[in-house]
Amino acid sequence: MPATAIYRNLRTTDNKLVDIACADGKLKAISPAGTATGDGQAMDCKSQLVLPALVESHLHLDKTLWGMPWRPNSAGATLKDYIANERKVLREVNVPIARRAGSLLEQCIARGSLHIRSHIDIDPEIGLRHVEAMLQLREAYRDVVEMQFVVFPQTGLLIQPGTAELMEEALKMGVEAVGGLDPAGIDNDPIRHLQIVFDLAVKYGKGVDIHLHDRGELGLWQIERIADFTAATGLKDKVVISHAYCLGMFPTSRIEALGRRLADLGISLMTSAPADTSVPPVDFLKALGVNICCGSDGIRDAWTPLGNGDMLERAMLLAFRFEWAKDAELVSAFDSATYAGARALGLSGYGLEPGNAANFVILPAETLGDALARRPAERRVVSHGRVVAEGGSFLDTRLT
Amino acid sequence: MPATAIYRNLRTTDNKLVDIACADGKLKAISPAGTATGDGQAMDCKSQLVLPALVESHLHLDKTLWGMPWRPNSAGATLKDYIANERKVLREVNVPIARRAGSLLEQCIARGSLHIRSHIDIDPEIGLRHVEAMLQLREAYRDVVEMQFVVFPQTGLLIQPGTAELMEEALKMGVEAVGGLDPAGIDNDPIRHLQIVFDLAVKYGKGVDIHLHDRGELGLWQIERIADFTAATGLKDKVVISHAYCLGMFPTSRIEALGRRLADLGISLMTSAPADTSVPPVDFLKALGVNICCGSDGIRDAWTPLGNGDMLERAMLLAFRFEWAKDAELVSAFDSATYAGARALGLSGYGLEPGNAANFVILPAETLGDALARRPAERRVVSHGRVVAEGGSFLDTRLT
Repeated sequence: MPATAIYRNLRTTDNKLVDIACADGKLKAISPAGTATGDGQAMDCKSQLVLPALVESHLHLDKTLWGMPWRPNSAGATLKDYIANERKVLREVNVPIARRAGSLLEQCIARGSLHIRSHIDIDPEIGLRHVEAMLQLREAYRDVVEMQFVVFPQTGLLIQPGTAELMEEALKMGVEAVGGLDPAGIDNDPIRHLQIVFDLAVKYGKGVDIHLHDRGELGLWQIERIADFTAATGLKDKVVISHAYCLGMFPTSRIEALGRRLADLGISLMTSAPADTSVPPVDFLKALGVNICCGSDGIRDAWTPLGNGDMLERAMLLAFRFEWAKDAELVSAFDSATYAGARALGLSGYGLEPGNAANFVILPAETLGDALARRPAERRVVSHGRVVAEGGSFLDTRLT
Repeated sequence: MPATAIYRNLRTTDNKLVDIACADGKLKAISPAGTATGDGQAMDCKSQLVLPALVESHLHLDKTLWGMPWRPNSAGATLKDYIANERKVLREVNVPIARRAGSLLEQCIARGSLHIRSHIDIDPEIGLRHVEAMLQLREAYRDVVEMQFVVFPQTGLLIQPGTAELMEEALKMGVEAVGGLDPAGIDNDPIRHLQIVFDLAVKYGKGVDIHLHDRGELGLWQIERIADFTAATGLKDKVVISHAYCLGMFPTSRIEALGRRLADLGISLMTSAPADTSVPPVDFLKALGVNICCGSDGIRDAWTPLGNGDMLERAMLLAFRFEWAKDAELVSAFDSATYAGARALGLSGYGLEPGNAANFVILPAETLGDALARRPAERRVVSHGRVVAEGGSFLDTRLT
């Protein structure tokens, strides 16, 4: 039920007081405060700040334990230990994805994310179960939040025979992007890994989103190969490399040519702005034209207990990561949680412009910098013209 | 007006349901839920989590612009630019410290900090004005929050003739600790710098808290010298080194002996857990017995626009800094914002034990990990037995 309504006296991030008129769920007009006319309910927003709906570019909804009783992290030391531990934890918890992922999804919505990309695990053991559950979840919230999925070979692609076939099945079922995972470091055959991923993307007209944790030269070399495949397959603007820690491990002079290549090919980078490892030098790469977005990654799952799904907090963490202080830097951090995310995800009709979906966040903050520093929970989240969350709570829960 | 009251049905961090009885502002007894008897009002806390009051170990209250209109960061590139810019900004803003610092102080209280160490700038230009204002501020909030001060030579000690004399004056006025600032990197004469700092501390029976940003071997060498002075002056347990980035720049084998020395001399470390530089390896040093606490450092001032005075958030940032995930690691992060801070500051009667001041925080969280991950703003802050803040607001504002 998209709404027709007028939101009055909103402060934009460039400090103008405006009214926003919505009709049938679309943003109809932005006009100086006090001038909007139209049908539907009017709400006085009392000079609160308005932001475009937040964009969560990298989440693992199917892994989360959000809404479940607290469970101490029980993983061992190695990546293999973590993967095995996750299987064990999710078996033991034995709560449907609809419940766990739905609980976190409602939290993300309450914090203002209305455009979300989630990875979905697939492997011969879990088969297509997670995919099926996530597709149902998407349907259940389709009127509120725009979700897109990446089929993610968490335990490897080539080293887990049968996985490529399952990925293909998931794409047929409606998943939007083909995932990959450390083609060299985990799958041991990077070119064949990328060949499968890009072949699937081309065959089904999908995007690509590759988890790349491999470090140092091994990481850089794979980014070059991902660029090769992107160029060869014509998937310009449709490829995301997630994490890409390796780009932060070299002097910027060493990665300048590669950065230009990423910009030319429209390959986006996604970072969760981790503090315990290197991250791509965001300002340097953005200046070259590389699109860089932010995501939460895992939230309260068998990997990490931290995270709260607040993309304003993620933008703050990105600013914190680089000790950004200038307003332009804060705008850049915010961009990674909004417009850059929309570009990476290939969203159409995103942003506070007439004709787009009326998706925005209203919160008691003076400026964008103030919003990033304080991140008040008392936000009103407007989806398709109507308030769907208030005071940190989703108003129309679908959890059973 | 310390209170006599009973707080019923509180969940402790080790998951017991208890009542806390307070009498005349002291914590009188902790007993199983439903068993407390005594005078005064009773409040049912409905199984919310109780935490000891948070300890803010490193703040610059006199620098903040909190509560003022947003001001874009205007600093130049170098440390000298930042110092000059700060002078300019505070002149232009021209708002009394009582207003700026008081505004931030009330925010810190609302987030649960009831024990706060703030540095106070001193130099020949500002003289004792900041010290006088901060001493007045302390008086105005003495019934609610325990504050202690460090006299801080922000523009240098030896390179600013007259500063040592002003520092001595501040100590006579009641400031608790002698500050220092990069004895080598800024003041250019490390031994004479430390001699002055430690002489003043001994003469007036004060503590020491030195800002040490100097990096690499230069930093380590100064930590050794601070240890020499601590041993020679008998100031065991009374010295804090703030930041100490250098300790994170070496393999742990290189700093093990130094770590043991810090532990032996009771020299505490303070970190704000920055993500853009190295920080002391907290788990390694804690295992050696070094006391490590957390602080916010500057909040919304001429140096940085970030920060919100929430020490639960700072503890989260410490966990985030090291990608801590295990419950024991989250306890360690929380310790840095509570008990380790109390040790560093030499607080007596701190913590949830009978006989101590009844200072605690009640919040809707399931476990300590949940509290760190979500950091809900709806906290009830109890100081000397009475609720002084609720829902993110200090209930008894003294701002005029």
